[in-house]
Amino acid sequence: MNLQDYHLTLQDVSDQRPEYLETIFSLGNGHFGVRANDPINGNPISGTLINGFYETAPITYGEAGVGYAQKHQTILNLPDLRHIHVTTNTGHHFTRSKRTATDLDLSSGKLVEDYLTSTEQGETVRMTVTSVMGQQRSNFWAIGYTFAPGNYAGGLLISKSIAVPAEVEAIASADPRKTRLAGVPICETTFLAADLQRYHVKTHNTKQAVTLYLGLLTAQASLLQQSVDLSDRQPHTLEYEVYVGDISRQNTIDPSAMFVPTSLDALTADSRDFWQDVWQRSEVAVEGNDELDLAIHYNVFQLNQAAGRDGRTNIAAKGLSGSGYEGHYFWDTEMYMLPYFIYTNQQMARQLLVYRYQILPKARERAHALGANQGALFAWRTINGEEASPYFPAGTAQYHIDADIAYAVGKYYEITRDLDFILQCGFEMVLETARFWEDFGSWQQVGTDCRFEFHTVTGPDEYTALVNNNYYTNRLAKHNFQLVVDLAREIQKRSPGNLETFGVSESDLDVYQNLADHVYLPYSTDLKINEQDDSFLDKPRWPKDRSTPDNFPLLLHYHPLTIYRYQVAKQADTLLAEYLFPEDLTTEELKREYRYYEGVTTHDSSLSRSIFSILAARMDDREKAYNYFMDTARMDLVNLQGNTADGLHLANLGGSWLALVAGFSGFYVQDEVVHFTNHLPKNLKRLTYRMKIAESVLEIDLTATTTNVTVISGPIPTYGVSVNGKLISLEKVS
Amino acid sequence: MNLQDYHLTLQDVSDQRPEYLETIFSLGNGHFGVRANDPINGNPISGTLINGFYETAPITYGEAGVGYAQKHQTILNLPDLRHIHVTTNTGHHFTRSKRTATDLDLSSGKLVEDYLTSTEQGETVRMTVTSVMGQQRSNFWAIGYTFAPGNYAGGLLISKSIAVPAEVEAIASADPRKTRLAGVPICETTFLAADLQRYHVKTHNTKQAVTLYLGLLTAQASLLQQSVDLSDRQPHTLEYEVYVGDISRQNTIDPSAMFVPTSLDALTADSRDFWQDVWQRSEVAVEGNDELDLAIHYNVFQLNQAAGRDGRTNIAAKGLSGSGYEGHYFWDTEMYMLPYFIYTNQQMARQLLVYRYQILPKARERAHALGANQGALFAWRTINGEEASPYFPAGTAQYHIDADIAYAVGKYYEITRDLDFILQCGFEMVLETARFWEDFGSWQQVGTDCRFEFHTVTGPDEYTALVNNNYYTNRLAKHNFQLVVDLAREIQKRSPGNLETFGVSESDLDVYQNLADHVYLPYSTDLKINEQDDSFLDKPRWPKDRSTPDNFPLLLHYHPLTIYRYQVAKQADTLLAEYLFPEDLTTEELKREYRYYEGVTTHDSSLSRSIFSILAARMDDREKAYNYFMDTARMDLVNLQGNTADGLHLANLGGSWLALVAGFSGFYVQDEVVHFTNHLPKNLKRLTYRMKIAESVLEIDLTATTTNVTVISGPIPTYGVSVNGKLISLEKVS
Repeated sequence: MNLQDYHLTLQDVSDQRPEYLETIFSLGNGHFGVRANDPINGNPISGTLINGFYETAPITYGEAGVGYAQKHQTILNLPDLRHIHVTTNTGHHFTRSKRTATDLDLSSGKLVEDYLTSTEQGETVRMTVTSVMGQQRSNFWAIGYTFAPGNYAGGLLISKSIAVPAEVEAIASADPRKTRLAGVPICETTFLAADLQRYHVKTHNTKQAVTLYLGLLTAQASLLQQSVDLSDRQPHTLEYEVYVGDISRQNTIDPSAMFVPTSLDALTADSRDFWQDVWQRSEVAVEGNDELDLAIHYNVFQLNQAAGRDGRTNIAAKGLSGSGYEGHYFWDTEMYMLPYFIYTNQQMARQLLVYRYQILPKARERAHALGANQGALFAWRTINGEEASPYFPAGTAQYHIDADIAYAVGKYYEITRDLDFILQCGFEMVLETARFWEDFGSWQQVGTDCRFEFHTVTGPDEYTALVNNNYYTNRLAKHNFQLVVDLAREIQKRSPGNLETFGVSESDLDVYQNLADHVYLPYSTDLKINEQDDSFLDKPRWPKDRSTPDNFPLLLHYHPLTIYRYQVAKQADTLLAEYLFPEDLTTEELKREYRYYEGVTTHDSSLSRSIFSILAARMDDREKAYNYFMDTARMDLVNLQGNTADGLHLANLGGSWLALVAGFSGFYVQDEVVHFTNHLPKNLKRLTYRMKIAESVLEIDLTATTTNVTVISGPIPTYGVSVNGKLISLEKVS
Repeated sequence: MNLQDYHLTLQDVSDQRPEYLETIFSLGNGHFGVRANDPINGNPISGTLINGFYETAPITYGEAGVGYAQKHQTILNLPDLRHIHVTTNTGHHFTRSKRTATDLDLSSGKLVEDYLTSTEQGETVRMTVTSVMGQQRSNFWAIGYTFAPGNYAGGLLISKSIAVPAEVEAIASADPRKTRLAGVPICETTFLAADLQRYHVKTHNTKQAVTLYLGLLTAQASLLQQSVDLSDRQPHTLEYEVYVGDISRQNTIDPSAMFVPTSLDALTADSRDFWQDVWQRSEVAVEGNDELDLAIHYNVFQLNQAAGRDGRTNIAAKGLSGSGYEGHYFWDTEMYMLPYFIYTNQQMARQLLVYRYQILPKARERAHALGANQGALFAWRTINGEEASPYFPAGTAQYHIDADIAYAVGKYYEITRDLDFILQCGFEMVLETARFWEDFGSWQQVGTDCRFEFHTVTGPDEYTALVNNNYYTNRLAKHNFQLVVDLAREIQKRSPGNLETFGVSESDLDVYQNLADHVYLPYSTDLKINEQDDSFLDKPRWPKDRSTPDNFPLLLHYHPLTIYRYQVAKQADTLLAEYLFPEDLTTEELKREYRYYEGVTTHDSSLSRSIFSILAARMDDREKAYNYFMDTARMDLVNLQGNTADGLHLANLGGSWLALVAGFSGFYVQDEVVHFTNHLPKNLKRLTYRMKIAESVLEIDLTATTTNVTVISGPIPTYGVSVNGKLISLEKVS
């Protein structure tokens, strides 16, 4: 496999509206993100998002209740870093701008945009904007503006500074009383030198602070007044660098933090190194469809841009590409995005799980607020660990997030065998979530059958709420119990004496094993399929006369009460459990269940199609797998959901990677064996991708007739590798 | 039975806090209510509530959804009519006041209160306040202040006017911008003469208007300046009358509406006539417990004060005694309060049902918003007919309100045979609600059984939400279908040709009969009881370790998710259906079911105990019936729920009447026979009460050994009367 150059350009996307392109061409590095807004004529949805930098505001309920989420948490939209103020030397202001070309280099992270900009008086100038994020140097971002003559070839006066966002200015000037300004941060700016601006931003309620610096890299001049003379008809470039400090949690500004500018080139080199490393360990390429090939590269690129790397932040539902879902972290991370990191970048995966450990104390509080006497319940949507979902039937009721996180810990350990993480963070999370399930569930005697049940929960399918014994929830809780036992055995084996420090005795383990053995899993003997919940199959199907395209997504057309009373699913629910536990069903059973649930699923959630693709591949229905995959792979590039302007659908990006890897190549890990099965759809000539499992980078290469797994770097793995059902010996590529 | 004088005094209530007494001694006449606040030292919770005079404000949702209720509707708290400004002629202001005695005469509606009032300087004066509502003249209220020397016996300067409420003043003066004032009405006041003030109040959003007049009845003087000289050491009285106009729906003021003051005595006579008539047809007396005897009189008194009489208003959950529940009308009316009116005052009952007919167009809109293609769905809580419940799981999901209203129409017709009402209003409501059920439910094939089911509903029990086949809901919907057929047959019989005008054909009636015959009623073959819903009995019981008194009411201590997942009921649910349909169960079956549900019911709702009392009486468990009754009968007089300051628990007042009548005397009507059965608890020597059924006032008299029913006035009824299981012939008392 040759690591190739991939570029995303304007020609590769279907929508040309500025707010859409801002999202698509946004840059990020896990710490912060910069949307690709037009530097001249403002920003439909500006600007700069710092992962985990947020403000709170009280949630207002028409009718409140005990234990309801108390505060909105909202990621702050910070000043536009790309804006530049350009006038002719006769004072004509360049206010109009048209994007003429854009090129995002996925192998270096460099974004180059061409604009034709003009004054009210009709003078035009061509402007090329080059920007890049620091990646190892993740506090940095640099931008260069190259001006070349259009119909105007005279002098230009240029000014650039970090400006207080318009919203803040407007409110601040209107009213000196501060009570209504709680959501708006406090901004202070100082010019430390003519070419260096410092900008502090502090929040009222969350007591966070961040310091930004803007430095002029080229020329000895003032940020507020530079000049360029185009009369030589040559292009002239001005370069700037911005430092975005780490978030201070004490609302204090560190005056000693001083920014030393480098150069756009240096930052580009830093970025290129990072991306080369990413592609080296996680390149994914397909032959037979260039659009798709580019799309999957783009998806992997954006996953890496979005993920927090510091153990205190995570992956927001829209990454750092937009403020949709308020910058909150959901179960999307563990179920849809984390697998990519577990299997390509162990350190990143660990950091994402460490974030969950950081908020474990809040999860303990939440369990208590929900009436549990023990354990921890993670918030359904959050930044700081507190529940921020104001609609509990599709928020807090999705208790399964607890088991999702435990599942992710298990998958992480399974392949990394990172006992240090388990001892420091992982086991405690698995134990505390199991303790919650133990308290939350109840023993029910049904005939001679004694079983452990969970009532009034909402599963992944948000079109069905507050039901008993959701299969997905119960299956994952069962696994959560089992994981306590399994990890405890690992600790006993690999680190004797350490289990006791968690207050876990042998008899506790017996209790968890017994719970794992007795969690009830609803099954329809009529249909011979696992049942989504106790009542799902008893409900009428969604009416045919309301199934024309203009009725979807249902949530935008119908009251929840109307949706809830039908047997209709927004997304994979029981099938999501089947995807996670391939050992549970024979192919025949899976086919039967798939056929049934496919008939009642609308895929109104962006989390659905990838799972349907993976399972179709597992059933070897390659055409169906391909079709579902095609809907996921280019979801944002074709603006399928119509709301990409609010940010990318990060979980779907992760899901599209899963569809290729877990779907087309049948990847899964079980009992220390890594399995691959060739389900390559006939529309694709070839699929080649890399993973890093333990210390080894593997390359998997599939064609219609061949399935090869080779070791690209690192040792020959000690785990088993099975290809198309046969254990093979790996060889290292020369 | 001798119609006696009953007086409620300070000695009869357990709580002496002003805000509590304001509620208890509030006066009303269906059109408006005046809380008994202290005229001197202000009003913890002032003031004047006009039935149906309300303002709207947008409901804010943390996370909104399609079809959610859009606007809060809030009854307005209007100016305090009781306030009076008193100073010594040396300018010392009487600002302190202590209520020393209070007497509410239930036979005349006159309220007399004694206060000792004082200045900052220590002068004291005794003040007796006499007030009365017009009843036939329901726009009027009068008040007299009698001053007598305390330690001060000099001149007094007195001023009285209707003042803009403090809240309005404060906001109006703070900020000229009106956007935040939407909820506050516009007030304008004019002195038409020195002794006559006019006060207009208009709402912004609902475009309602009301005109108030305040007139000075005694002395030729100015409202703003009167004087009294106590140096003769005699009491001196000043009297005033207030006219509260009808609500104008066009936000217009009728300048010609002119108020002609009468006198406190004249208004007292008007009030006494009204109450004599009330008692004449609905006196309820018990012997053996004076407290209880007074309490039940008080309850009937307050029911009559609260009920709207104009066909455009109804009975708010707190009546006109407080602004709790925002002045909204609930199902409480039809299920708990209307029976009293149906069986004592047919005209009032009709007007309360006409109100529902007035909002039928809104109910049609609501059905459509909830995804129905036909029919009407009444709002769970409302003033203007639009849904105002911001929490749909315990609001809109209580679809049963539709069948409750239909049931009430049926009960009204059953005893009145008022075909005119059925043709003008009743049948259309029954038909439109049935049409909703038809659209809302679905046919399910279970084995060979084809049944009609209702999914994702909330029954009366608000501790269980969004379940399938709630027994109460299904039973009432079944009755709703049957009622269409039964009333259609009545129309065919009594007014041939009229059925067609409703667009109802014979084949439609076949459809409704078939639906009525096939509505599914869940039944537990294990427990041999009707099942509250498909899943209630599968849930664990509420934990014993959370059953100490400080855990109740559960809704104030636990998240709804915690409550919902247990088998725990806030109130009678399945048993409420059993109460409504005595023919459904044998006594043995009822006992079994009662025993079961009693064990899982917390009675956290004030609607619960009265039903448990009635059914215990039906089972002839007289001691239990008495105990539950005792908790309901004096609920507000002992401030059992602790929140009587917000207003009286009107439904419970109605429920306590039901407990006596439907419980202790076993009253029910079926197939044109009125049944009475003596279940008098041994703690009571005697129960005597009156009802007006059709044109006849009956008196029912129970002792341990006797059960007598006699006709007090009107003709000997044509319907059958059964006493203790035997049909009897009624005789008219001499």
